[in-house]
Amino acid sequence: MFLRNIIYRLLQYRSCLHYFKGLGFHKIFSTNLATEAGVSSEQVRKDFSLFGIKGNKKGGYEIDELLNSLDKILQKDVHEKMILIGMGNIGKALAQYKGFNKDNISIVAAFDIDPSKQNKAHGVPIYPINKLKQIISKHNVKIAILTVPVSVAQDLCNLLVENHVLGIINFAPIILKVPEGVIVNNINLTHELNNMIYFININKEIEKVVN
Amino acid sequence: MFLRNIIYRLLQYRSCLHYFKGLGFHKIFSTNLATEAGVSSEQVRKDFSLFGIKGNKKGGYEIDELLNSLDKILQKDVHEKMILIGMGNIGKALAQYKGFNKDNISIVAAFDIDPSKQNKAHGVPIYPINKLKQIISKHNVKIAILTVPVSVAQDLCNLLVENHVLGIINFAPIILKVPEGVIVNNINLTHELNNMIYFININKEIEKVVN
Repeated sequence: MFLRNIIYRLLQYRSCLHYFKGLGFHKIFSTNLATEAGVSSEQVRKDFSLFGIKGNKKGGYEIDELLNSLDKILQKDVHEKMILIGMGNIGKALAQYKGFNKDNISIVAAFDIDPSKQNKAHGVPIYPINKLKQIISKHNVKIAILTVPVSVAQDLCNLLVENHVLGIINFAPIILKVPEGVIVNNINLTHELNNMIYFININKEIEKVVN
Repeated sequence: MFLRNIIYRLLQYRSCLHYFKGLGFHKIFSTNLATEAGVSSEQVRKDFSLFGIKGNKKGGYEIDELLNSLDKILQKDVHEKMILIGMGNIGKALAQYKGFNKDNISIVAAFDIDPSKQNKAHGVPIYPINKLKQIISKHNVKIAILTVPVSVAQDLCNLLVENHVLGIINFAPIILKVPEGVIVNNINLTHELNNMIYFININKEIEKVVN
């Protein structure tokens, strides 16, 4: 988790820098970046120094230089092509999400078992599952987003792994079994909500005790 | 992060227990639960013991008892009503997601500034923003899901806080500023993908060096 958290923070700094750049700024101090990113300025300087990024105490950081450095560290200088498996509601929403393109990411193809969904209605071409191998190999895809029901998630995961996919963003509420070297990031919306419910209610109880 | 991670694991155990129960199991050993949840069996026993849940080394855990205990810890014995702000693609997908109801969570209302979206087409009633106060108070809503563009996210967040919302699941790629006592959980899909891109490419580079 240690490195993952640093990378999330670097991504956050990068978003904030784009925001400041959009406002017309050329330079930025670690303290401004920290406030916008919701961390301490020591944290910002520490994270940057881990990757050899140096600031100037008096003059701050050049935004463009900083963005270049972050893009290199985060491997964002290469356009990354992904596929999407499952064109349910979440799949459709992701296929239509315009934020990915701005960030050098594109969903090159989607797959669904339902023949009625196999068209181009949602911004990306939708194929039957038996085209998976061909499309993955054609676009050299290494990352897939899985938005399918639990009942088929592991089988489709296995198929992705067989076809040399190395990273899976999984929306199905199940822990996928993958061989070493394959990374799965789970996005479980029900767990997010339940986690929130726990902390809200605990806070309310603590408040009752304190007051 | 310490407590948050434990709670995520408890939620995961709970999902797995429902899965085993669905398969007809009455009892379970920590090792089975651990395998399914993707953690060690020591971790399972440690997490349970923190909350005073005791197993029987020979006989394992009674699934129903365990589920009851977890539901109490996780405050899942109460039905939680939420609202959704922003009926874009992600908002629509969440409004239609059936997984929440199974878990004692319901989205009681959605809000959008676009009058053409203010209807009941997506499973929940959709209101204009000026009805927010009334609906929150009527349903005693404490949690909101925010799926709006960055440009309006902070303003809508402020409005939610003014109306005593205590927890916000935020899909907008921005760090929201909230007063103490309000919890924000961010779901940033682009960051998830970029995080994945980083680790996939780093792994590929390490592999090149090793081989």
